Amino acid sequence: MTPEPAPLSRTDPAPLSEQLARLFASRIDAGLMAAGTRLPSIRHCASRYAVSPHTVVAAYDQLLAQGLIRSERNRGFFVRERNALTPAASAATADRTPLAFPNDIGSLIRTMFPAGVRNQVKDSMDASRPSPASGVLPASWLDEGLLIKALRRAVAQDNSSSGALYGTAQGDPLLRDMLALHLESLGITTPSAQIITTSGATHALDVVARTLLSPGDAVLVDSPGWSVEFARLTRMGVRLLPVPRGPQGVDVAALEQLAATHRPKAYTTVSVLHNPTGHSLNLTQAHHVLQLAQQYDFFIVEDDTYAAFAPAHSPRYAALDGLKRTFYVTGFAKIIAPGWRVGCIAAPADWIPELLDTKLIAGLNTVTPTERALSLCLQHGWLRRHTEAVTSRLDAARSRTVQLALRHGASFAAPPAGLFGWVETGVDTEQLAQRLLDHGWLIAPGHLFYPERCSSTRMRLNFAAGQDMAFWRAYQREVRLSKATAGG
Amino acid sequence: MTPEPAPLSRTDPAPLSEQLARLFASRIDAGLMAAGTRLPSIRHCASRYAVSPHTVVAAYDQLLAQGLIRSERNRGFFVRERNALTPAASAATADRTPLAFPNDIGSLIRTMFPAGVRNQVKDSMDASRPSPASGVLPASWLDEGLLIKALRRAVAQDNSSSGALYGTAQGDPLLRDMLALHLESLGITTPSAQIITTSGATHALDVVARTLLSPGDAVLVDSPGWSVEFARLTRMGVRLLPVPRGPQGVDVAALEQLAATHRPKAYTTVSVLHNPTGHSLNLTQAHHVLQLAQQYDFFIVEDDTYAAFAPAHSPRYAALDGLKRTFYVTGFAKIIAPGWRVGCIAAPADWIPELLDTKLIAGLNTVTPTERALSLCLQHGWLRRHTEAVTSRLDAARSRTVQLALRHGASFAAPPAGLFGWVETGVDTEQLAQRLLDHGWLIAPGHLFYPERCSSTRMRLNFAAGQDMAFWRAYQREVRLSKATAGG
Repeated sequence: MTPEPAPLSRTDPAPLSEQLARLFASRIDAGLMAAGTRLPSIRHCASRYAVSPHTVVAAYDQLLAQGLIRSERNRGFFVRERNALTPAASAATADRTPLAFPNDIGSLIRTMFPAGVRNQVKDSMDASRPSPASGVLPASWLDEGLLIKALRRAVAQDNSSSGALYGTAQGDPLLRDMLALHLESLGITTPSAQIITTSGATHALDVVARTLLSPGDAVLVDSPGWSVEFARLTRMGVRLLPVPRGPQGVDVAALEQLAATHRPKAYTTVSVLHNPTGHSLNLTQAHHVLQLAQQYDFFIVEDDTYAAFAPAHSPRYAALDGLKRTFYVTGFAKIIAPGWRVGCIAAPADWIPELLDTKLIAGLNTVTPTERALSLCLQHGWLRRHTEAVTSRLDAARSRTVQLALRHGASFAAPPAGLFGWVETGVDTEQLAQRLLDHGWLIAPGHLFYPERCSSTRMRLNFAAGQDMAFWRAYQREVRLSKATAGG
Repeated sequence: MTPEPAPLSRTDPAPLSEQLARLFASRIDAGLMAAGTRLPSIRHCASRYAVSPHTVVAAYDQLLAQGLIRSERNRGFFVRERNALTPAASAATADRTPLAFPNDIGSLIRTMFPAGVRNQVKDSMDASRPSPASGVLPASWLDEGLLIKALRRAVAQDNSSSGALYGTAQGDPLLRDMLALHLESLGITTPSAQIITTSGATHALDVVARTLLSPGDAVLVDSPGWSVEFARLTRMGVRLLPVPRGPQGVDVAALEQLAATHRPKAYTTVSVLHNPTGHSLNLTQAHHVLQLAQQYDFFIVEDDTYAAFAPAHSPRYAALDGLKRTFYVTGFAKIIAPGWRVGCIAAPADWIPELLDTKLIAGLNTVTPTERALSLCLQHGWLRRHTEAVTSRLDAARSRTVQLALRHGASFAAPPAGLFGWVETGVDTEQLAQRLLDHGWLIAPGHLFYPERCSSTRMRLNFAAGQDMAFWRAYQREVRLSKATAGG
């Protein structure tokens, strides 16, 4: 039996109400309770933390006084917008355009990184424990030796005549040659002249979006899908057209209907090992979607961030289409190290000059030493060997995590594959996430993966970080309590 | 006496008309003749290249057939828009929103880098020769040993527990501490919590602009100023309000008038060693402009890209203002190596969360190894010593270049300082640039530095790369010929 969560201490000299207020304040600050999140009712909160309702009322009063929450008559207490937290010092501050997408996207992403939120919420979390919410591999899985070897070699080779001190707009030529070979191994044939290096896949997607899209354009996106992509597009003034993506992949009929009605400019999608469902594109769907792209004249922005973990011979849009209307994006941060930002775009030849202009305007060139180092990793087969080792380890971890999940009452909304599982919990995961925080566990609740931010009973689970029995015991306990509370 | 330029060869088996067409085609491809540039008249072209008018007509016919130029009745021949060069394969391609700012900005920036254009225009240019148009230091001035030492040390220190494998949203904590000390030495007091690292100053300016500005906003910019900044803002749908900046600095009365009329959201400016004039802000102006910023409620985006070359005790807006309404941006690419992108933003505390969101959405985090390496360079005083050496060398090069320039009939539109001189040539520098290309010299003509792209008799001169007698002889010859042609 899991012990009760005990974020409050009776030996602490501070009153319980103050401890409780501090607990919520730290979560709001860390973005773990987004603007608009409802706080537990007085009664539920009192029961969850084993304090009197008076203590909860006193704690909420403190949060109200600090301007962190607001009260709505007969509805309860809600986290305030971040902008509202900042006193409007001037008109320029006051009329900041409110973003259509929630402002807390940064906090969301930070939760996906090991060192992010946990430094901010030290009290309840153990930084050395892999987080099931994480979007990346645990540190112990990364090969630091590979990084050191590659960078040392790259630095040793550096010399002023090679152009490495300056970099070039399109990216290191040796790396682009290696990338062309690498893409060829994925079935994508392209000359290196059609490849542009970037600071990781996210930067690549940003360069493509800023080149292709204008405010007011409509773009098809996978739903569920990756929030950072939604946030980026929404901020650009682009309208999102969510296309349902289930265990069998994208709903092609829905996609066609949306394409016919809204005439989107592009469809941006994680084709292989989709985040969060783990689904990979098959040939039939790839062909069908490309036909629709032709018929309704939209581009495909193919995000292949999880390429390293993909089964051999996974089809890609870019392979079928020969980069005619596909912008292919991939990166190496997931497999090498998130702090090592190297990615690329492979694009139709006639779009290369405009993509280069966008890259240049937004940041001139990219970082030469890490580009050189990656080209060595590709050239000498170091990356391939590291990838093989990680993939076997991930396969084993996935099996164990799936067993643990099933044994603790979870099920999978899509067949487990790749780095992430899309877990059906049976309860609202936004609420479940708050409950698990009391145990020091961060999960990635389902609503974060929907463009509509609709409530969800699912969560994304990192297979490499889902094998802690303590997590699953806390999970099972809190799911049961959630059901009991919902029922009562 | 300089020999005649001889880009055409009478021993080449290709006809002269074909050689001439190839010459123009390669310059158009390389972006050295922007869309809308007028080609020399048949008569002038024949005289410049010592061929018959028939040869020129045949060459222009070939360029017309290739779709590279267009002819306007009674006005002459002009370079066509780049988009017009690409056959419109589809509606999505055809309705690409034309950019308000010329599309050739990427080519412009590429001309500023040593390895950029010259690889494309091999025939006439010698890649080992420093270019007076360059925006960066010559390779021989950079200290490759410093880079290697710092990266090796950073890689050796790396370990998985330090978070270096992942990076953090705000940037390496050690680097931010070092940057806070570094800024303190410039008179800017800020806690490291108000510092965000970026991939160089250009990326920093992009993050600030995307956070502060929305389409339709008006922004004050220096005129002349830096084209990349104009292009980035224009692409975002921001209206530019050019403020004249002369040898005595910004025209404060004009700035006030524009602020009162257009209510801009920000003033973006290179405060110290302004590109291209070399002017540095003084205390009186800084105070006056900050008062206007207060009165008319706009932010100041202070671009301190040339900080490394700045005189000690140069005032900065951020120092006076205490980062209340100033977003301070600097970078280290100019002094360390352009291929090493590390920069930072220091900003008002209440804007940090939104700046972080923008950085995350557009590229997650920045590159850890180079950030670590820069923090070592700062910590051990390596950067300071390198900077002192470069600055003395630049002082000497500037003296010699100024003497050469004056001796060959050039004058300076502003007192020579820092890396760039703003040279008055007395002739249209767009035309002069085409003439000097025939000698294999690339210059940075003045019209590129005006938001209005108005024609200009000035050019920007890199003091570190302006000491070649062959350049000045060619310069003097072509200025004289330009004047003779204009007069005739």
